[in-house]
Amino acid sequence: MPTRRPNALRPTTIEPYPTNAAGSVLITQGGTRVLCTASIAEESPRWMIDKKTGVATRGWVTAEYSMLPGSTNSRKRRGTDSRATEIQRLIGRVLRAGVDLGQMPGLTITCDCDVLSADGGTRTASITGAFVALSQALAKAQLRGLVDGSPLLGNVAAVSVGIVDGSPRLDLDYKLDVAADVDMNVAMNHRGDFIEVQGTGEQGTFSRDQLDSLLDLAATGIRELITIQQDAESTLKQP
Amino acid sequence: MPTRRPNALRPTTIEPYPTNAAGSVLITQGGTRVLCTASIAEESPRWMIDKKTGVATRGWVTAEYSMLPGSTNSRKRRGTDSRATEIQRLIGRVLRAGVDLGQMPGLTITCDCDVLSADGGTRTASITGAFVALSQALAKAQLRGLVDGSPLLGNVAAVSVGIVDGSPRLDLDYKLDVAADVDMNVAMNHRGDFIEVQGTGEQGTFSRDQLDSLLDLAATGIRELITIQQDAESTLKQP
Amino acid sequence: MPTRRPNALRPTTIEPYPTNAAGSVLITQGGTRVLCTASIAEESPRWMIDKKTGVATRGWVTAEYSMLPGSTNSRKRRGTDSRATEIQRLIGRVLRAGVDLGQMPGLTITCDCDVLSADGGTRTASITGAFVALSQALAKAQLRGLVDGSPLLGNVAAVSVGIVDGSPRLDLDYKLDVAADVDMNVAMNHRGDFIEVQGTGEQGTFSRDQLDSLLDLAATGIRELITIQQDAESTLKQP
Amino acid sequence: MPTRRPNALRPTTIEPYPTNAAGSVLITQGGTRVLCTASIAEESPRWMIDKKTGVATRGWVTAEYSMLPGSTNSRKRRGTDSRATEIQRLIGRVLRAGVDLGQMPGLTITCDCDVLSADGGTRTASITGAFVALSQALAKAQLRGLVDGSPLLGNVAAVSVGIVDGSPRLDLDYKLDVAADVDMNVAMNHRGDFIEVQGTGEQGTFSRDQLDSLLDLAATGIRELITIQQDAESTLKQP
Amino acid sequence: MPTRRPNALRPTTIEPYPTNAAGSVLITQGGTRVLCTASIAEESPRWMIDKKTGVATRGWVTAEYSMLPGSTNSRKRRGTDSRATEIQRLIGRVLRAGVDLGQMPGLTITCDCDVLSADGGTRTASITGAFVALSQALAKAQLRGLVDGSPLLGNVAAVSVGIVDGSPRLDLDYKLDVAADVDMNVAMNHRGDFIEVQGTGEQGTFSRDQLDSLLDLAATGIRELITIQQDAESTLKQP
Amino acid sequence: MPTRRPNALRPTTIEPYPTNAAGSVLITQGGTRVLCTASIAEESPRWMIDKKTGVATRGWVTAEYSMLPGSTNSRKRRGTDSRATEIQRLIGRVLRAGVDLGQMPGLTITCDCDVLSADGGTRTASITGAFVALSQALAKAQLRGLVDGSPLLGNVAAVSVGIVDGSPRLDLDYKLDVAADVDMNVAMNHRGDFIEVQGTGEQGTFSRDQLDSLLDLAATGIRELITIQQDAESTLKQP
Repeated sequence: MPTRRPNALRPTTIEPYPTNAAGSVLITQGGTRVLCTASIAEESPRWMIDKKTGVATRGWVTAEYSMLPGSTNSRKRRGTDSRATEIQRLIGRVLRAGVDLGQMPGLTITCDCDVLSADGGTRTASITGAFVALSQALAKAQLRGLVDGSPLLGNVAAVSVGIVDGSPRLDLDYKLDVAADVDMNVAMNHRGDFIEVQGTGEQGTFSRDQLDSLLDLAATGIRELITIQQDAESTLKQP
Repeated sequence: MPTRRPNALRPTTIEPYPTNAAGSVLITQGGTRVLCTASIAEESPRWMIDKKTGVATRGWVTAEYSMLPGSTNSRKRRGTDSRATEIQRLIGRVLRAGVDLGQMPGLTITCDCDVLSADGGTRTASITGAFVALSQALAKAQLRGLVDGSPLLGNVAAVSVGIVDGSPRLDLDYKLDVAADVDMNVAMNHRGDFIEVQGTGEQGTFSRDQLDSLLDLAATGIRELITIQQDAESTLKQP
Repeated sequence: MPTRRPNALRPTTIEPYPTNAAGSVLITQGGTRVLCTASIAEESPRWMIDKKTGVATRGWVTAEYSMLPGSTNSRKRRGTDSRATEIQRLIGRVLRAGVDLGQMPGLTITCDCDVLSADGGTRTASITGAFVALSQALAKAQLRGLVDGSPLLGNVAAVSVGIVDGSPRLDLDYKLDVAADVDMNVAMNHRGDFIEVQGTGEQGTFSRDQLDSLLDLAATGIRELITIQQDAESTLKQP
Repeated sequence: MPTRRPNALRPTTIEPYPTNAAGSVLITQGGTRVLCTASIAEESPRWMIDKKTGVATRGWVTAEYSMLPGSTNSRKRRGTDSRATEIQRLIGRVLRAGVDLGQMPGLTITCDCDVLSADGGTRTASITGAFVALSQALAKAQLRGLVDGSPLLGNVAAVSVGIVDGSPRLDLDYKLDVAADVDMNVAMNHRGDFIEVQGTGEQGTFSRDQLDSLLDLAATGIRELITIQQDAESTLKQP
Repeated sequence: MPTRRPNALRPTTIEPYPTNAAGSVLITQGGTRVLCTASIAEESPRWMIDKKTGVATRGWVTAEYSMLPGSTNSRKRRGTDSRATEIQRLIGRVLRAGVDLGQMPGLTITCDCDVLSADGGTRTASITGAFVALSQALAKAQLRGLVDGSPLLGNVAAVSVGIVDGSPRLDLDYKLDVAADVDMNVAMNHRGDFIEVQGTGEQGTFSRDQLDSLLDLAATGIRELITIQQDAESTLKQP
Repeated sequence: MPTRRPNALRPTTIEPYPTNAAGSVLITQGGTRVLCTASIAEESPRWMIDKKTGVATRGWVTAEYSMLPGSTNSRKRRGTDSRATEIQRLIGRVLRAGVDLGQMPGLTITCDCDVLSADGGTRTASITGAFVALSQALAKAQLRGLVDGSPLLGNVAAVSVGIVDGSPRLDLDYKLDVAADVDMNVAMNHRGDFIEVQGTGEQGTFSRDQLDSLLDLAATGIRELITIQQDAESTLKQP
């Protein structure tokens, strides 16, 4: 296999996957495979409901993230650990940045990201894939008359970047991730604005210059991922 | 779609699926899809270890069963409920009937059955698929020198049967299952002996004659499923 | 003690036991003793309530099963493990087959089976005893005007059978259970129809002929147990 | 039924009860019935084991308390709530005051108190009954050579007292307990020394004089209970 | 440091502490420091609400107790263990004895006692401090018009006493507590009546005479603590 | 009160606080007060111990974060929720960036951050305060001979920044935090390198220019906080 360039994504596809959820896609990014489903519930989280009126004026989008036991080299035990908790909060925040919640009152959409096979970048692949499942579910909600017009504000996607052997790299697989001194996850929208930036230097620290080069790299990757999302969305819309 | 005959299985395939587990297949039986992985651990459950010698003279095979949130029409909440507990105990018991545990001392193989899409018969499809994943994992264990010779005793597979509108039916999908007065899950081995028979008449009771006709039907279906397993096993063995 | 014949039940009694529950009996079957109580609540499980009308058109019967710490040779830890979960689901299913739930709208009866002393067959003794407690509770519900007429459809009882040293045996005690190659629990009603058949061959498999002889043996035992139930019910009705 | 005198115990019996535990008695005190079992384990709690030597120089006695679902008028849900936690800590402390733990190194005895029927005073009846089960278990431990000589220091028993309608009362049943302004549980040994005094005035407060009269009453009751214990112990010792 | 007399309290202060709760004080008693806050909620516990009227005719006061991880010599793990459960039930009972719950319908006040530093007597210091926080919260409730007039019935406070080396001691610090044969916690009101007496002799038993001398000592200490409470309350009322 | 400039920290102090932990300080940053303690344990987390040698070649630093119930305007329920989980993982990661774990084999230091009063920026104040407690604990570890030389690599501190009404602001209090469109937490070391950057735009997105101005502001604030830390460390070292 030819070596991947430092600024190249791994081969990435987003395909429809047959489940019983309103939105359902499988994202494959190199050896990472995540099944992303989006389920619609005609209800609102408790804290969102106005105690006086009994009604919620906005909708909600939330996410859950889990790794299947066979997704990792040594079997992953089931259950939500602290890492998964942190990741699913991130996924939810980023997806909500792509939606006008005021346009979907009374609805809750839960995006489930289940990692079938893990080879690095599972949280960012989850975001990128879940956005398409969410978009698919919102299209169904429109058809069923649950929302007027699309609540979508535009695409959101995410990618990981990092500093490996002193150089910036795009889209870390597991081996690169382990070798990285600095690890950063970046989520952006279709206009190139940031939604979330999370950079961590547990094995080291990073300078302002390094930060800048990582953000540049992430922007490139995310533009490409949004194109892949848009292709998948077109396909899904076809009869 | 032509109506399925009462004694016909739904279209069924068992294919290899790329995860990081030692054994990994996707079984598709009509609209039911279950990802079955088998992971090897070089350890023994506590209760199996002799307190004096500190060693277990036999190995262990166990199973976990879970439905992904998007697998059902209304989103399934995560977590092991009492139904899943009962099902995974059944899967484990049946798989162990296909293995000589004395031939795999010091090893534990966990078979994870994650339902990606549910349309009836998920527990029996889990058994049928997990056996192939288990067989694949045991082949790897042999290659790695963890076992001498194969601990497999022969194939095991399972199918559901039931009485719908007064007539016996093979391989119930969700609609048939809901309509059934009697629901029975049967597991057998390649010699046609029973491993497990679980018949329940919550919506009604059943006579000895009805029981007999259900068992006949199950035997037919299981013979066919074992052929499908054997084909999948041949494919997996090819380079 | 003279050897028990292979087709004989252990000495079995069902007696009223003074607790504060609406129905309350102690069943003794050889060395197995289970306190079975039935408590009436004027409420319905959530999932049964129609969201629009706020009312449940049927009642519910459920069961809980637990072994007291001193019931086993080495102290049993408290708490519901997976075995208990599976057993209490079985007990509930079988009891419901003896009741017309449509005749008891708005009521939930919980049958608690607490094993005081365990010597094999605790799940089947629980069913046989709990039915009498349930019957007693339903009689009280009638007296209090909570139901019109009795919702009972007839008696249900259960027994274990197994293959020990190659021969079929009725009503296995702990020693026989450990020695058995095949273990089967059978529940039937007063008309001799099956409600539940659960046969397991973890230590071996079983042929159709063996299955047939086990079912014959179970039918004999259950007929006898239903007579014991009916005697206990007559006693309980007396002033 | 003739009115019980304010300084009289309810009819109280302590009988052997057939379970699989080393010690096993049923105490009946009026309408309160508690099954008390004592189980021997040849192990020590972790915190008791000296990290250097790996050995515990003393033994341990602990207790668990639970009410069966049918023991109360409205069904009691299973599981250890905060009241049960508090009670089982009390039972354990009092029982340990009757034992020289230094005489039973390497042993842990767990006394399980399961309330079959509750009519007030369940925690004190648990103490009084569990002591006899403990004594029975320690006798077996001696026979098995697990201890040299008896670790028992003498009998311990407990009773409830309270102020009802302004007057002190011994051994409150449920109705009296509800009506009481002050509720006190007292545990003493055979020499008439206090082990535990717990007086609570949630519905009111109490003066020093009232406290004195309650303690006098408790002493009377406990003397009588210790006689009942001793009679039971003699019976249990007979072949 | 001069030796403390057996009947002397440790140096004790109760000061306002800036948090966001309605009542908030820090009690320091020797090396023991407890942050006591009281939070007002305009709601009632479920069990207190009349099912017919949907209203609670009385209010509720409850307490939670916790030790911060750094409060003890070896780090205390977080979470409510059985000791904390027992203690917070005690604190709640005693505080309620100082309040006319009928005067505060529809309100629940939760008193949180968080031990910042532990040197014995944390449960009694919690009671003494929490009463002042509760009093402060009730004053605010009056200002906000949530209650008419003060629901307080008078001060309540608590202290520990014990028998160390055969002699009675007031206000045990950690070293004395470990050395004590008998340990007693006493809560009284401003009139000198008992609210709660809890005496335990796990390391030994105690005679009636010893009990009497402990109660005398406790009464002295509590009188002094109530003076300290009243001084703190005056300070808190000043503008 | 004069308005705070957009690039000014709130008044901040770090003081020693008397608990029983090895390191213990109270950090006050405006209305936010966090008690930070550091406890030393001579043990290693399981996953760090080499299975063959039974020894860990490095030490570990971890953190726990909790808000006391009275710290917030409406009472905070106890227990670790998903937000706390995410925060304590962040605190731990950042603190570890200030320590050479290879210099402290066999030791685990747990930094507990308990928020006594919350007015925004509790997670960053926790980091800044916990570093001083950690430094104090490591000094004690040196005195006790548990480590050779100081494992500290230099100071680490953190601050929040955000975009409020379109302008960048340093050190957000609760009101500013609620009003902010973008919220960013930044941790740096004494050399001005980044350890962690977490920027979130749930209420909006942010451009590269805005990101740059936030990072500049954070750098200013952190330099000032490190000076405050160093002053506190000097004070703590004095006899």
